[in-house]
Amino acid sequence: MRTQQGLFAGIFGRGGVDAGDEAWLQAMLDAEAALARAVERAGLAAAGAGAAVTAAAVASGFDPGELGRQAALTGNPVPALVRALTAAVPPWAASAVHRGATSQDILDTAAMLVAKRALRAVLADLADAADAAAGLAVAHRGTIMIGRTLLQQAVPVTFGLVAAGWLASIDEARQALARVRDERLAVQLGGAAGTLAALGEAGPRVAGLLAGELGLALPVLPWHTDRRRILDLAAALTGAAAALGKIARDVTLLAQSEVVREGGAGRGGSSAMPHKRNPVASVLVLGCTRRVPGLLATLAAAAEQEHQRAAGAWHAEWEPLADLLRLTGSAASWGAELLAGLVVDGLRMRANLDAAGGFPMAERVAALLAPALGPAAAHDLIAAASADAVAAGESLGSMLKSGDTARSLAAAGVTPGQLDAALDPAGYLGAAAAFTDAALAAHRELDPRLRP
Amino acid sequence: MRTQQGLFAGIFGRGGVDAGDEAWLQAMLDAEAALARAVERAGLAAAGAGAAVTAAAVASGFDPGELGRQAALTGNPVPALVRALTAAVPPWAASAVHRGATSQDILDTAAMLVAKRALRAVLADLADAADAAAGLAVAHRGTIMIGRTLLQQAVPVTFGLVAAGWLASIDEARQALARVRDERLAVQLGGAAGTLAALGEAGPRVAGLLAGELGLALPVLPWHTDRRRILDLAAALTGAAAALGKIARDVTLLAQSEVVREGGAGRGGSSAMPHKRNPVASVLVLGCTRRVPGLLATLAAAAEQEHQRAAGAWHAEWEPLADLLRLTGSAASWGAELLAGLVVDGLRMRANLDAAGGFPMAERVAALLAPALGPAAAHDLIAAASADAVAAGESLGSMLKSGDTARSLAAAGVTPGQLDAALDPAGYLGAAAAFTDAALAAHRELDPRLRP
Amino acid sequence: MRTQQGLFAGIFGRGGVDAGDEAWLQAMLDAEAALARAVERAGLAAAGAGAAVTAAAVASGFDPGELGRQAALTGNPVPALVRALTAAVPPWAASAVHRGATSQDILDTAAMLVAKRALRAVLADLADAADAAAGLAVAHRGTIMIGRTLLQQAVPVTFGLVAAGWLASIDEARQALARVRDERLAVQLGGAAGTLAALGEAGPRVAGLLAGELGLALPVLPWHTDRRRILDLAAALTGAAAALGKIARDVTLLAQSEVVREGGAGRGGSSAMPHKRNPVASVLVLGCTRRVPGLLATLAAAAEQEHQRAAGAWHAEWEPLADLLRLTGSAASWGAELLAGLVVDGLRMRANLDAAGGFPMAERVAALLAPALGPAAAHDLIAAASADAVAAGESLGSMLKSGDTARSLAAAGVTPGQLDAALDPAGYLGAAAAFTDAALAAHRELDPRLRP
Amino acid sequence: MRTQQGLFAGIFGRGGVDAGDEAWLQAMLDAEAALARAVERAGLAAAGAGAAVTAAAVASGFDPGELGRQAALTGNPVPALVRALTAAVPPWAASAVHRGATSQDILDTAAMLVAKRALRAVLADLADAADAAAGLAVAHRGTIMIGRTLLQQAVPVTFGLVAAGWLASIDEARQALARVRDERLAVQLGGAAGTLAALGEAGPRVAGLLAGELGLALPVLPWHTDRRRILDLAAALTGAAAALGKIARDVTLLAQSEVVREGGAGRGGSSAMPHKRNPVASVLVLGCTRRVPGLLATLAAAAEQEHQRAAGAWHAEWEPLADLLRLTGSAASWGAELLAGLVVDGLRMRANLDAAGGFPMAERVAALLAPALGPAAAHDLIAAASADAVAAGESLGSMLKSGDTARSLAAAGVTPGQLDAALDPAGYLGAAAAFTDAALAAHRELDPRLRP
Repeated sequence: MRTQQGLFAGIFGRGGVDAGDEAWLQAMLDAEAALARAVERAGLAAAGAGAAVTAAAVASGFDPGELGRQAALTGNPVPALVRALTAAVPPWAASAVHRGATSQDILDTAAMLVAKRALRAVLADLADAADAAAGLAVAHRGTIMIGRTLLQQAVPVTFGLVAAGWLASIDEARQALARVRDERLAVQLGGAAGTLAALGEAGPRVAGLLAGELGLALPVLPWHTDRRRILDLAAALTGAAAALGKIARDVTLLAQSEVVREGGAGRGGSSAMPHKRNPVASVLVLGCTRRVPGLLATLAAAAEQEHQRAAGAWHAEWEPLADLLRLTGSAASWGAELLAGLVVDGLRMRANLDAAGGFPMAERVAALLAPALGPAAAHDLIAAASADAVAAGESLGSMLKSGDTARSLAAAGVTPGQLDAALDPAGYLGAAAAFTDAALAAHRELDPRLRP
Repeated sequence: MRTQQGLFAGIFGRGGVDAGDEAWLQAMLDAEAALARAVERAGLAAAGAGAAVTAAAVASGFDPGELGRQAALTGNPVPALVRALTAAVPPWAASAVHRGATSQDILDTAAMLVAKRALRAVLADLADAADAAAGLAVAHRGTIMIGRTLLQQAVPVTFGLVAAGWLASIDEARQALARVRDERLAVQLGGAAGTLAALGEAGPRVAGLLAGELGLALPVLPWHTDRRRILDLAAALTGAAAALGKIARDVTLLAQSEVVREGGAGRGGSSAMPHKRNPVASVLVLGCTRRVPGLLATLAAAAEQEHQRAAGAWHAEWEPLADLLRLTGSAASWGAELLAGLVVDGLRMRANLDAAGGFPMAERVAALLAPALGPAAAHDLIAAASADAVAAGESLGSMLKSGDTARSLAAAGVTPGQLDAALDPAGYLGAAAAFTDAALAAHRELDPRLRP
Repeated sequence: MRTQQGLFAGIFGRGGVDAGDEAWLQAMLDAEAALARAVERAGLAAAGAGAAVTAAAVASGFDPGELGRQAALTGNPVPALVRALTAAVPPWAASAVHRGATSQDILDTAAMLVAKRALRAVLADLADAADAAAGLAVAHRGTIMIGRTLLQQAVPVTFGLVAAGWLASIDEARQALARVRDERLAVQLGGAAGTLAALGEAGPRVAGLLAGELGLALPVLPWHTDRRRILDLAAALTGAAAALGKIARDVTLLAQSEVVREGGAGRGGSSAMPHKRNPVASVLVLGCTRRVPGLLATLAAAAEQEHQRAAGAWHAEWEPLADLLRLTGSAASWGAELLAGLVVDGLRMRANLDAAGGFPMAERVAALLAPALGPAAAHDLIAAASADAVAAGESLGSMLKSGDTARSLAAAGVTPGQLDAALDPAGYLGAAAAFTDAALAAHRELDPRLRP
Repeated sequence: MRTQQGLFAGIFGRGGVDAGDEAWLQAMLDAEAALARAVERAGLAAAGAGAAVTAAAVASGFDPGELGRQAALTGNPVPALVRALTAAVPPWAASAVHRGATSQDILDTAAMLVAKRALRAVLADLADAADAAAGLAVAHRGTIMIGRTLLQQAVPVTFGLVAAGWLASIDEARQALARVRDERLAVQLGGAAGTLAALGEAGPRVAGLLAGELGLALPVLPWHTDRRRILDLAAALTGAAAALGKIARDVTLLAQSEVVREGGAGRGGSSAMPHKRNPVASVLVLGCTRRVPGLLATLAAAAEQEHQRAAGAWHAEWEPLADLLRLTGSAASWGAELLAGLVVDGLRMRANLDAAGGFPMAERVAALLAPALGPAAAHDLIAAASADAVAAGESLGSMLKSGDTARSLAAAGVTPGQLDAALDPAGYLGAAAAFTDAALAAHRELDPRLRP
C-alpha cells in the first residue's frame, strides 16, 4: 500500500490516515495476537501463549519487502507472515499462532482495524471542518451574496446559508461514518471455509472473544464472501468525499470573482505566473474526491464473491480500500484547513450583487404583479422587461420605472415604494436565516456525540 | 425513463418496481398536488385549492411526449408540466400551483416518491427471497457438500450454511434499505436558490406540511446541492444487488456440477441445443447486478454539485437512479424466484464430495498430527502425501494407510480409528450448524419488522 | 431499450441516434435476413430462401412486447424472434432461418449494426460541431481574452485558440470513431460454441458472406467471448463525449461572466426567475457526458466473459451500449447546436481583461527582469509587487511604476516603454495564432475524408 | 506513486513496469533536460546549457520526500523540482531550465515518458503470453473438450480453439497498445496557458525539438486540457487487461474440473489446507484486472477539464494512470507466466466429455432429424429425449436407441450408423481447426512487427 511519504504523498496522503504497508502489517499482527489471546482464553492454548504472541507481533520485527516477495507464491502475504511470526514466538506458544484461522480471516480483520484507525483521523478532521463551517455560518448569517443556479446569477442568498449547507452535509457524513464504525466494522473468523472446523465446538466462542479483544463487532456468521461491510464502509467514505467535493467546487468557483480566497501563508504560488494565488487546498480536495467514485465502483463490483473465497475479487479489494481511506482522509484534512482559513470578502459579495443590475430580483418583482396579472403573465412581462434592459444596457430597476413597463406596473397597483422594496435583495432572503440557525442547532446537538 | 414493456423489459424490468415515464410523471404531479395542499394549509391559497390541484394532478391527463419535447427548451420537464397543470385547474386555484417552488424541488421530491414506491416492491421481493433462503437453510442444515475457495475444492461445508450466508446477506440488505427509506428519503423544497424566498416567512412551515402530506422526511435545510441522500439510496440498492449477485454467482457455479438447478417449468431452453437447461434466473440476476457499480459511480460522481443548482450533474442523476431502482428490482424479483424454486441434489453433493478422494480432509488429518509433530511439519507431511496420492491416482486415505506415511502416522500415535474418523467429512463441520441456526434466529427476529 | 420519445427523450435522446427497441429489433431481423442470404449463397438453402426471409424480416411485423415477455424464458429475445420469423416465411424457406447460428450471433451482430447506424448520426453531428468550432476559431483568431488556470486568471489567450482547441479535440474524436466503424465493427457468427459445427465445412465461408452482406468486418475467428470490440467502440464514444464535455464545461464557465451565451430562441428560461437565460445546451451536454464514464466502466468490467458464452456479463452489455450510443449522440447533437449558435462578446472579453489590473501580465514583466536578476529573483520581485498591488487596490502597472519597484526596474535597465509594452496583452500571445492556424489546417485536410 | 517493493508489490507490481516515485521523478527530469536541449538548439540558451541541465537531471540527486512536502504548497511537485534543478546547474545555464514551460508541461510530458517505458514491459510480456497461447493452440489443435455456455455443458470444442481465441485477443490488444504508443503518446508544451507566450515566436519550434529529443509525437496544438490522449492510453491498457482477465477466468474455471492446472513449482499452497494447489497466477491476474474498469472510469471522468488548466481533474489523473500501468503490467506478467506454464490434461478433458452422457451431441442429432421433421419438431423431439434420459439416469445415446425415440428416428430414416456418427464428438467440431489455424497465421504475421 502507498505510504505517507513520497513525491505525491503531500497531496494525496495528507492528514492522519495511515493505510500504508506498515499500518497493514501491524494490523495483521494485531489480528494474529488477538486471536492467540482469544484462543488462550478459550482454553485452547497454554497460559501465556497470548501474551507471548502479542509480544512478538510488532511490525518492526518483520520485513514487508520479503513478505511481499513470498506473497506471490500463495497470493497473499499472510502465510509468510504466519511462518515468520511462528518462528518469533517460543515453541510452546507456537500452536496458538493462527489457530483455526485462514489467511482471509487475518487480512479481512486487519482491513477492519486499518479502517477503524483511519476513521479516527477522518472523523477528527471532519469535526474540525464542521466547526469551521459553523463558524462561517455564524459570521456570515447576514452576508448577502448572489445565488447561482446552472452557474448563472439567480436570486440573493447569504453566505451564511451556503456555509450552513456545507455544515449540514459534513455533519450527516460524520454520522454515517460513525455508524459504520460502530455497527459494520466486524471481526472476520471462519477458518478454511467458514465453518471454523479446526476449532471444533469452540469456534463461535473464539470469534466472540476475538471481537472483544479488538473492539470490533461480532457478525451473525462469518462474512468472508459477503462483502457488504466493505461496501458500507466505502459508501460512507464516499459520502464524506461528496460533502467535501461540493465545498471545494463551490470555493474554486467563488474564488473566480474573488469573493473568497484560501488562507495559508506561502501557498498557492505558480512557477510561471508571479501574480497567482491558486486555491490549492480546494483544488487538491477535488484531486482526491474525483477519484472516489471509481474506487467505490471497483469495490462494489468486487462484492460478487464466489463460494467460500473469491478467486480475484477479494484480492481486488485491498489497494482500492486503502486508497479510499487515504484519499478521503487527505480530502478531509485539506477540507478542514480550507474551511478554517477561508477569507470571505463580504463587501465584494455585496458589490457584485449590486453590480448585477437588479436582475436577481426579477422573480420577486414578478411576484408583486402576480396577484393582479396572474403568475404566468407577470412572469412574461418581467421576462420581457429583463430582456429589454439587457439589450439596452440598463438595470432592471431603471427599465421598470420607465416606459410601458412602468405603466403596466402602475396599472397593476404597484407603487414606486413597493417596487423599490422589491428590488432590495435584503428583503428577499426568505428562510435563509432560519435554515442557517437550524443547521447550527443540529450541529451543536450532534458535535459532542461525534467528536472522537 | 424506460417503461416496463419492450424487447428487454422481461429481463431487466421484472418485478414490481415502476420507474418509467408514467411513474415519474405521476410522482411529479403528486409533489405538485401535495405542495398545493400544503400551501393551502399554510393559509397561502384559497380553501379548496389543494383539492382542486390534486384532482387535476393525474398522469393520464398529460402527454409525456409533448412534455419531453418542451423539456428541451428549459432543460427539464417541470416548467411545461406546471404550465399544463395550471391550465387544468380552475383559475381561482392557479396561484396554488408550484407556489414558491422551483423545478428542482418538484423533480427531486418526485425522485424520492418514485424511490419510496420502488422500495416497497424491492423489499417485498427481498423478503420472499430471504424466506426462501431460510427454507433452504432449514432443509439443508445437515446436507454436506464440498466447500470451495479460489474455486478449488477446500473442506466440507453444508449447503445449509451456504444458504444461511445468503440469508444473512439479504436480511442485512433489507435493513439498510428500510433505514434509507425511513431516514433518508426526504422532501426537497427550497425555491429558486434554497431560501424559499417566494414564500416569505412561511417557507419552513410549508416544507414541513409538504413532508407530512407525502410521508417523506423533513431535512434540516434544503438538500438541492447536497446529494448524499441520492448516494445513500444508491448505496443501499447496491448492497442489495451485491447480496443477490453473490447468490446468483454461487448458483451458476453450483449448477456446473449439477448439484443445484433452477426450477421454473419451460424456462432455460436453448435455441440451438435441445439438451440445455440454462440457469436463466441466476444469469439474469447477474445481467442486472453487473450494471449496478457503474450506475453507483455515476451517481457518486454527480454528487459534486455547484452552488445552488448544478449545471449538468443534477441532470445526470435522473436516468441512472431510475435504472438502479429498476435493475435492483428486477434482480430481486429474479432472485426471489430463483431461491423459491431452487432444486438441490443433496445426494449428488455428497457423491461429489466422496469422489474427491479424501483430499478435502487433509487439513483435519494434519491437525491430528500437529500435537506430535508441530503444525508446520504436520502440514508439510500431509501436503507431500497429498501430492503423492494425486500423482499415483490414489485417494488420500489409501496413501495415508500405506508405506512411509502410515509409519509416520503410527509413530505420531495416530490410530487407524482416529484416522478413519478424521477422514469423515461429517465430523469436520465445526460451527456450520451453529452459524446456520444463528442466521435463522436473526431472520425470525427481523422478518416481522421488515415485511412491508 | 429506451425509445426516442418520452418525458426525458428531448434531453437525452436528441439527434439522429436510434438505439431503441425498434432499432434493435430491425437490426436483429437484418442479421437473420443476411444470414439466410449468405446461407443460400453458400448453397445450403434453396434458391430464393434468402429473399423470402428478407421479405419477412421487417420489424413492424413483430411485437416487441410479446418478444420481451418470452425473452424471460430463455434469457434473450432471439429464440422467440426466430420462432416468429420462421412462422412468417414459406415452409420451404424455413430451414434457412437462423441456420447454424446461436442467439448470441444474432444479438452481437445486431449490436454492431445498431452501432454502425448510430455512428452515422454521431459523426454527422460531430462534423457540424467541428465546422462550427472552426468558424469560431477563424472569427476570433485575434479576440483577446483572459486565460484561466485552476479557474483563476492567468495570462492572455485568444478565443480563437480556445475554439481551435475544441476543434482539434472534436476532429481527433471523429477520426477515432471512424476507425472503430471501419475496423472494429465486425460480424459475429460462431454457432453454439464458436465452432460453427452446425454448418459443417461451410462455416467460415458463410461468415465471410454474412460480413459482406452487412458491410461489417470479418474477424479472424468468432469474438463471442472476446469483447474488446465493444470496449473499443465504447472508448471511442467516450472520447467524443470527453471532447464535448470539455467544451460544454468551458461554455458554462464563460457564460458566468457573460462573455459568451448560447443562441437558440425561446430556450433557457426559468420557471421561477424571469430574467434567466440558462445555457441549456451546454448543461444538457454535461447531463449526457457525465454518465458516460460509468457506462464505459460497466462495459469494461463486462468484458471478462467465461468460456464460450458468459453467464450474465454478456447480458449486462446490451442496455449500457444502447445508452452510450444514445447519450453520445444526444451530446453531439446538443454540442453541434451549441457551437453553431454561440454568441461571443469580444468587447466584453477585452473589457474583463482590461479590468484585471494588469496582473495577467505579471509573468511577462518578470521575464523582462530575468536577464538582469535571474528568473527566480525576477519572479519573486514581481510576486511581491503583485501582492502589494492587490493589498493596495492598485493595478500592477501603477505599482510597478512607483516606489521601490520602479527603482528596481530602472536598475535592471527596464525602460518605461519596455514596461508599457510588457503590460500590453496583445503583445503576449505567443503561438496563439500559429496554433489556431494549425488546427484549422488539420481540419480542412481531415473534414472531406470524414464527412459521412 | 507506489513503488515496486512492499507488502503487496509481489502481487500487484510484478513485471517490468515501473510507475513508482523514482520513475516519475526521472521522467520529469528527462522532460526538463530535453527542454533545455531543445531551447539551446532553438538558440535561446547558451551553448552547452542543454548538456549541463541533462547532467544534473538524475533522480538520485533529488529527495522525493522533500519534493512531496513542498508539492503541498503549489499543488504539484514541479515548482520545487525546478528550484532544486536550477540550483544544481551552473548559473550560466540556469535560464535554460524550465524555459517557457509550466508545471503541467513537465508533468504531462513525464506521464507520457513513464507510459512509453511501461508499454515496453507490457508489450514484452504480452508477446510472451501470445507466443505461449500460440504454443497451446498448436499443441491442442485436436484436443477435444466440452464447450460451455452460461457455464453449462454445451457442444464439443477443442482446447486448441480456446487457446486460439486467447491468442487472437492478446494479439489485437498488442496492436492497439502499439498504435497508442506510436500515435498518441505526445509531448506537451504550452506554457502558462497554452500559447507558449514566454517563448515568443519560437514556441512551436521548441515544441518540435522537444518531441524529437524525447521520441514522442508532436500534437497539432498543446493538449493541456484535451485529455483524450490519456483516455486512449487507458482504453488500450483496459483492452489488454480484458484479454488477460478473460483468460484467467477461463483457467480458474477449467481448473475446477482439473482439466488444466497452473505450473510454477512451490506456488499455490494454502496455509490451512495441505492438499490445495491454488491457481495463484490466474487469481492474481483477476486481482489486477478487476480494478481496471474503475480506474478507466476515473480517467474518463477526469477528461472534462476547465479552460487552460483544470482545478482538480488534472490532479486526479496522476495516481490512477500510474496504477493502471502498474496493474496492467502485473497482469501481463502473471498472464505470460500462467500461459507458459499451463499444464493441460487432454485425457481428462476427453474423459469428462465422455462422461457427459452424450448430451453435448443433442444439437447434432437434432440436425440429423431436421430434414425429415423440420427443425422445430426435431429440436423438440430431442429435447424431450434428453429430459427423459436425464430423469432416467441414462445417456442420450441409450435413450435414442430404445423405445419410442428409436422408432421416431427410424421413421425419419436415420440409420444406427448415422446415429452413432452423430454421437461422436470428434465429428462435430466444425471450423475449430480452421479458426485455430487462422489465429496462428495472423500471429505469425503480426508478431515480428510487434515484438519490442
